[in-house]
Amino acid sequence: MQDFVFHNPTKIIFGDEAELRIIADIKEAGYQKVMLVYGMNSVKASGLYDKIVRRLIKNELKFTDFGGVKPNPSLSHTQEAIEWARKNGVDCLLAIGGGSVIDETKAIAMGVPYAGDVWDFFEKKAEPLSALAIFAVLTLAATGSEMNDGSVITNESQQKKYAFSTPLVFPKASALNPALTLSVSKRQSATAAADAMSHIMEGYFTKKNELRLNDRLSEALLKTIMADTQKIMENPSDYEARASFMWSATMALNGILSVGLRECSFPNHLLEHSLSALYDIPHGEGLAIIMPAWLSWFSQREPKRVDRFCKKLFKKSGEEGVAAFEAWLKSIGLPTRLEDVGIMNTDIPKITTNILASAERSKSYKEYDRKTVEDILKRAAK
Amino acid sequence: MQDFVFHNPTKIIFGDEAELRIIADIKEAGYQKVMLVYGMNSVKASGLYDKIVRRLIKNELKFTDFGGVKPNPSLSHTQEAIEWARKNGVDCLLAIGGGSVIDETKAIAMGVPYAGDVWDFFEKKAEPLSALAIFAVLTLAATGSEMNDGSVITNESQQKKYAFSTPLVFPKASALNPALTLSVSKRQSATAAADAMSHIMEGYFTKKNELRLNDRLSEALLKTIMADTQKIMENPSDYEARASFMWSATMALNGILSVGLRECSFPNHLLEHSLSALYDIPHGEGLAIIMPAWLSWFSQREPKRVDRFCKKLFKKSGEEGVAAFEAWLKSIGLPTRLEDVGIMNTDIPKITTNILASAERSKSYKEYDRKTVEDILKRAAK
Repeated sequence: MQDFVFHNPTKIIFGDEAELRIIADIKEAGYQKVMLVYGMNSVKASGLYDKIVRRLIKNELKFTDFGGVKPNPSLSHTQEAIEWARKNGVDCLLAIGGGSVIDETKAIAMGVPYAGDVWDFFEKKAEPLSALAIFAVLTLAATGSEMNDGSVITNESQQKKYAFSTPLVFPKASALNPALTLSVSKRQSATAAADAMSHIMEGYFTKKNELRLNDRLSEALLKTIMADTQKIMENPSDYEARASFMWSATMALNGILSVGLRECSFPNHLLEHSLSALYDIPHGEGLAIIMPAWLSWFSQREPKRVDRFCKKLFKKSGEEGVAAFEAWLKSIGLPTRLEDVGIMNTDIPKITTNILASAERSKSYKEYDRKTVEDILKRAAK
Repeated sequence: MQDFVFHNPTKIIFGDEAELRIIADIKEAGYQKVMLVYGMNSVKASGLYDKIVRRLIKNELKFTDFGGVKPNPSLSHTQEAIEWARKNGVDCLLAIGGGSVIDETKAIAMGVPYAGDVWDFFEKKAEPLSALAIFAVLTLAATGSEMNDGSVITNESQQKKYAFSTPLVFPKASALNPALTLSVSKRQSATAAADAMSHIMEGYFTKKNELRLNDRLSEALLKTIMADTQKIMENPSDYEARASFMWSATMALNGILSVGLRECSFPNHLLEHSLSALYDIPHGEGLAIIMPAWLSWFSQREPKRVDRFCKKLFKKSGEEGVAAFEAWLKSIGLPTRLEDVGIMNTDIPKITTNILASAERSKSYKEYDRKTVEDILKRAAK
């Protein structure tokens, strides 16, 4: 077990009317002007936006808003939001949406008090010294961003999708009302499952030391996420399944699972981020394509480890185990090959170049050279 | 899944020299005068006390101290400590010890700013409005007090052992250095295992709704604690086993496992607290006596639930499963019957009277009437 510091100060408000109860937290903390950050029209069409605004008014909180966050949140939109937040003198941010909205909100929070370009943080050219306070109302359970300190932003002009983390951007509080996720489409629910599973699998496979507790907790969460997802596919209105999935997806990336691990890294995310940077496909779909390919490649290096995973979840081992994992992803409607989302195999060298540029930013990905990355991507071809 | 609020702000500093690194946290938070709270001579004999004091001096922090906390921390000692803290004008507390020391430290923290008697909180006659800041250096992993908001104090003159919790007493930071636990005796390690397991089992058995995630996480932790304990019994110097046990015992009662549970209650603790209040036996030994008896009684009400537990952990079911659990506790050297710690069966009515007085304080224990409690205690007789 490696030395570690665990400190996750985010308050989770879970259940009925959480999206309104969180406003009391903003008020009690003494903030005065809130910027609402959200995505497309759905939060307005559903009436959620109006409900929250009415509660803000009732609490005598001033507010402004900034919508239009995209599924792979973009640097340019983030920069505009930073300008808007400064111009309006807001002292805290309220994200209303899924992981993309919360991720962009985190970037805004770091960017507002910073004199330079917020992209500096993602390029590791600067470290943030302060950030605006963040609150979040979650409408799509998947990324875990509601209870962690990470953010992923896409620099569209440079076709780079980079991650950054700092304890400064842990949300002060996040509202998780499973009822808000009952209307999430089957397709989005499936990509959410792939995303949440990937967060657990990255630590499960990349750690270098034996940690039985983390293994067991990871398997407990993976089994639960798979069972919940199957229930959601059968009946999207199943509150219990939505609730269990919502909390499981949060647990998947709130730090509990990676405690004490050495060299925990995110190779599937490294590879996937280039797919969504280049082709703007949903992150979860990209992961469903990358993960079986990566697992197939990894099983040659660590066959016992992959066998344990496949046996625990699919009661199969070896190539049959990896195939069972891919079949499960397919069964919930996800693409699992590059061609399924219209990416040509002839693009593999180009995708690899993008991945290598990203890999250079971290020591964790030394072994991911051109040959290895192309090998993995070819396994994702038909 | 029930609505819940989860907010655990305690920072965990885990590993090498954690007991010194935590002093920087006290300094950075701006506290100026620390009261060290500890138990018997062991923290001085081991050199730990001196190491910490030198680091306090190096950081120009003033301090006073108050030792002598007992294994079942007493109200009278707590009251003396409160007086001492007031007299010395301390602004934060540093617990150095196990769960008893941290529990008493929490009571001191609530008591210092309160005009009345701190016992009022335990009798539910008053609610604390503020508390001194708490830091902790853990030397015995067992109770989870280092990362939760609960405290148990014994009122010796009234022979009452009562629990109380308030978010005000979450430690700001806790230092968990597994190396400090390498010298913990086998007997204490065994009682620690019983205690940590009991914290998981209480929620596992008393919840009223089906929560697969909590079940699976609980089983993951129980398996890990049992495996670690067996390793510790074979080789008390096994750092990995000590480290895994230490974090598992913290996880057992830091709130993660009880999230979303309805009617989670602590009947084994209710029963045990009377044993240690009346006979001053170690809490973990009392639990090892109570738990198999309680499980035997509970298996008549919820046979499926008890069978799941016994199958997962001992690959047995029914009476054989309960017997296997008791045999496992015995195998690590714990007493499992009243007689093993010198309690006469003829005392059962007296113990029951004490338990009933304690049960009256909470709605959760309505079903624990004289007949039921005596039934359970008789199962703990030879």
